[in-house]
Amino acid sequence: MNALFEKLDRGLTGIRLYGIAPPKLATDPERLGEIAAQHVARLRQLAPDGLVVYDIQDEPGRSGQARPFPFLPTVDPERYAYDALAELEIPKIVYRCVGAQPREAFSRWLDTVRAAGGRRLSVLVGAPSAQSRGSGLPLAEAHALARAAPSLMVGGIAIAERHVTKLDEHQRMLAKQDRGCRFFITQSVYDAASTKSLLSDYALELQARGRAPAPVVLTFSPCGSARTLELMKWLGISFPRWLENELRHSADTLERSIHLCERVFADVQDYAREKNLPIGINVESVSIRKSEIEASVELYRRLTGQLASRP
Amino acid sequence: MNALFEKLDRGLTGIRLYGIAPPKLATDPERLGEIAAQHVARLRQLAPDGLVVYDIQDEPGRSGQARPFPFLPTVDPERYAYDALAELEIPKIVYRCVGAQPREAFSRWLDTVRAAGGRRLSVLVGAPSAQSRGSGLPLAEAHALARAAPSLMVGGIAIAERHVTKLDEHQRMLAKQDRGCRFFITQSVYDAASTKSLLSDYALELQARGRAPAPVVLTFSPCGSARTLELMKWLGISFPRWLENELRHSADTLERSIHLCERVFADVQDYAREKNLPIGINVESVSIRKSEIEASVELYRRLTGQLASRP
Repeated sequence: MNALFEKLDRGLTGIRLYGIAPPKLATDPERLGEIAAQHVARLRQLAPDGLVVYDIQDEPGRSGQARPFPFLPTVDPERYAYDALAELEIPKIVYRCVGAQPREAFSRWLDTVRAAGGRRLSVLVGAPSAQSRGSGLPLAEAHALARAAPSLMVGGIAIAERHVTKLDEHQRMLAKQDRGCRFFITQSVYDAASTKSLLSDYALELQARGRAPAPVVLTFSPCGSARTLELMKWLGISFPRWLENELRHSADTLERSIHLCERVFADVQDYAREKNLPIGINVESVSIRKSEIEASVELYRRLTGQLASRP
Repeated sequence: MNALFEKLDRGLTGIRLYGIAPPKLATDPERLGEIAAQHVARLRQLAPDGLVVYDIQDEPGRSGQARPFPFLPTVDPERYAYDALAELEIPKIVYRCVGAQPREAFSRWLDTVRAAGGRRLSVLVGAPSAQSRGSGLPLAEAHALARAAPSLMVGGIAIAERHVTKLDEHQRMLAKQDRGCRFFITQSVYDAASTKSLLSDYALELQARGRAPAPVVLTFSPCGSARTLELMKWLGISFPRWLENELRHSADTLERSIHLCERVFADVQDYAREKNLPIGINVESVSIRKSEIEASVELYRRLTGQLASRP
């Protein structure tokens, strides 16, 4: 049995994922082939339990601030995962922004999942706000429809930054579990305290309701420059002031960020162990700069080492 | 030479203080004598480098929320420190809320300091806001007047919680140093991240200006009940959500708080060491319950142990 499905089916700690965004839609076919070949090579080398493929949408409503990088549409993540990376044997967890499409598109996709045979994994993401959804599918309806495809294992996102202000993210997680979600993936963790706070309320709520936890996969990304830092902040990732200072004033921002990710993960890992919460890691590079991608590979190695040595 | 003055004169790390509030003004003389005898006995046993005596003022303007405990005026901290605890030989650091009194009262006090002979230590505290000061003395003017008493070594308060929103507490610290402050004392630290953020900006500002750091004494207090937690929150002490959960849901809140204080201190201590900032500790009990006072003694022992073993 595949390691990822076993860990998910049994709610185990120790899931190891690597995440990528699909190439830009405007990429010419030859270059697309090269990128896919690089992804295959990198992932064979890393051999994670699974590959995360993001669904990058333009979000003009987000944070009211100008996007630091221009938005460029990407190849459809589903097609990239299953066509361009077809030769990659590991399970793929494909993100799907359900709020960006009407119900019919989601239903058609479910048909293809059923037709594909074998188990599939997807993280369903709602619209950032009811306003931004427009005629898109509400997340709860997508969850209800997805139950008709038993071969599909659905995960959800868990956002510690949202918990800081609203204090209800743990209840959203439980509601998603009620609607069939079997695991969660966070956005990049640089703020150990807010992540521990979410895990704390989640653990208390599970205990109060007599429920079992779903694995929470913590995402980590290297940060090699002030520009990447700005992008990550724009994406909603929070940085404690001292940690942002460390990055901004370091002679080697990239190496410093890797070291800080290790420390943040150790802190959250210790806490999750105390609370008997199964966790995992997902490493990605939010930037496509070569140095930051290489750093994500190094970070993946270090965090999986930490995951194995302090289970 | 006394250890405290040596550490302050040389800007060394490792200052060890214990803090108390004076007894209530309404305490009858016999009971007052008993309390002073208990303080003397406890402090002789602990043998800190110095004793902090707080100046507790009613602050109706604070946070707009009802005070969880009624305000009762206390014996004047100066008189308590030097009269009631006269037999206690260690240096005393007496807090003085300068905003609560007119200029004449401050000048008269400076005359008594000069007349007393020997070195004295005081932490001067401004009014919580310009409005609440009324006809009281502005802090900067108090600093200017205090320079006429060279035997008085002045310290200031440093509030990490204020830094989170205003991001200028490090500049206030530097301004206080410019006006003669030689050390800082924080309020109770339960939020490692905000304390590290203040130290981070302080270290960067010192570096930018080519200045030497003043010792920053970190205050720690045990928390034995939900009621003490509410009082500490009302006092402006911030608790990360997960840590507040730990306290509220622990079978032994008091012991849990001691353990958490040790972890918070270890985190801040490691960071201060990296930044070459001299730090110290000050332990107090914000409550007068016997169990919490005993816990403060235990906490003092553990933190001074930690201070010595990981200098």
